[in-house]
Amino acid sequence: MDATYTALCKHGYASLRMQDIADESSKSKATLHYHYESKQDLLYAFLDYLTDSFAERIETLEGETPIAQLLSLIETSLEPTEDDGLKEFRTALLEIKAQGPYDDRFRAELTAFDRLLHDRIRALLDDARDAGLVRDDTDPDETAEFIVTVLNGAQTRHVAVGHELECTRSMLETYICRQLLADDVDRTEVGFE
Amino acid sequence: MDATYTALCKHGYASLRMQDIADESSKSKATLHYHYESKQDLLYAFLDYLTDSFAERIETLEGETPIAQLLSLIETSLEPTEDDGLKEFRTALLEIKAQGPYDDRFRAELTAFDRLLHDRIRALLDDARDAGLVRDDTDPDETAEFIVTVLNGAQTRHVAVGHELECTRSMLETYICRQLLADDVDRTEVGFE
Repeated sequence: MDATYTALCKHGYASLRMQDIADESSKSKATLHYHYESKQDLLYAFLDYLTDSFAERIETLEGETPIAQLLSLIETSLEPTEDDGLKEFRTALLEIKAQGPYDDRFRAELTAFDRLLHDRIRALLDDARDAGLVRDDTDPDETAEFIVTVLNGAQTRHVAVGHELECTRSMLETYICRQLLADDVDRTEVGFE
Repeated sequence: MDATYTALCKHGYASLRMQDIADESSKSKATLHYHYESKQDLLYAFLDYLTDSFAERIETLEGETPIAQLLSLIETSLEPTEDDGLKEFRTALLEIKAQGPYDDRFRAELTAFDRLLHDRIRALLDDARDAGLVRDDTDPDETAEFIVTVLNGAQTRHVAVGHELECTRSMLETYICRQLLADDVDRTEVGFE
């Protein structure tokens, strides 16, 4: 899986070959083919692995309130991309997203990731509402959809035109602060700086 | 340009050949090559044409207030995709966005489109602020960036996982209504239904 990550960063999705992945690993191309019938099969497994790793990573989030945890989740999703090929990886992921309509397995994997992110945000917003931290008229489900859309947009624009992820992070914080937070809540007490 | 649109919808970006475009037009492949050295050159011209057409389309927007015009612009960007290959076209466009980091000309064309959309939204928000329709603390530039990000996210999720564009449109309206509109403004009078 690490070799697939590195090979995707180096070669992108479209021109990736099984040999490129073998070159990054201690396994031969023949061994890879023994476990995965095709490059596609290996990539399905890789997306599945990504979703599992992300699930693990966002299971426990820093912060004492659900709002602070939501801010941590947003920060995790919009990490700056200075090091270790993260920009290249996001580019490969965008190529794979563009395969969604043509490849049922890709779409299924992408949908699982999309739902994971949505459901985690929704659960945090549910908790925030139960704790009286967000306005009563906040719809946790629709708001989670909106935030997932914003995160997707930030990643797409980052890849396509180099838009800074940091700008979106700051606008999302403003959105949460102004539009979701209940009027009587002290913003510094729930996790805003 | 129409032939390029149709060919992109049918074949997608990655597997598109000059012959596919010729097949959709009254021109031969040789004639296309006379005008455009390569498939890439033709696609640069096509993106340029798209930006010009979109600029023309959003120059005059329906609605009597800048807010109503902003709602029209959002509606135009998030048109439902039932007919004439619009979903396929958005998919091809997402493939091209994923080429941004690897192709300077694509990135330049994509950036021109991104700026056009941003600047139009920004101008509408400037007008809305001058007319006292939005809160004084609205930053037209940052807010326009945020809306462009949301529109990109809606299109990415629509392609990747089939998320409904309509959901994003409704959430963006809520965002404008709750977070941007000045307190003393009657929402039905500025263009909300």
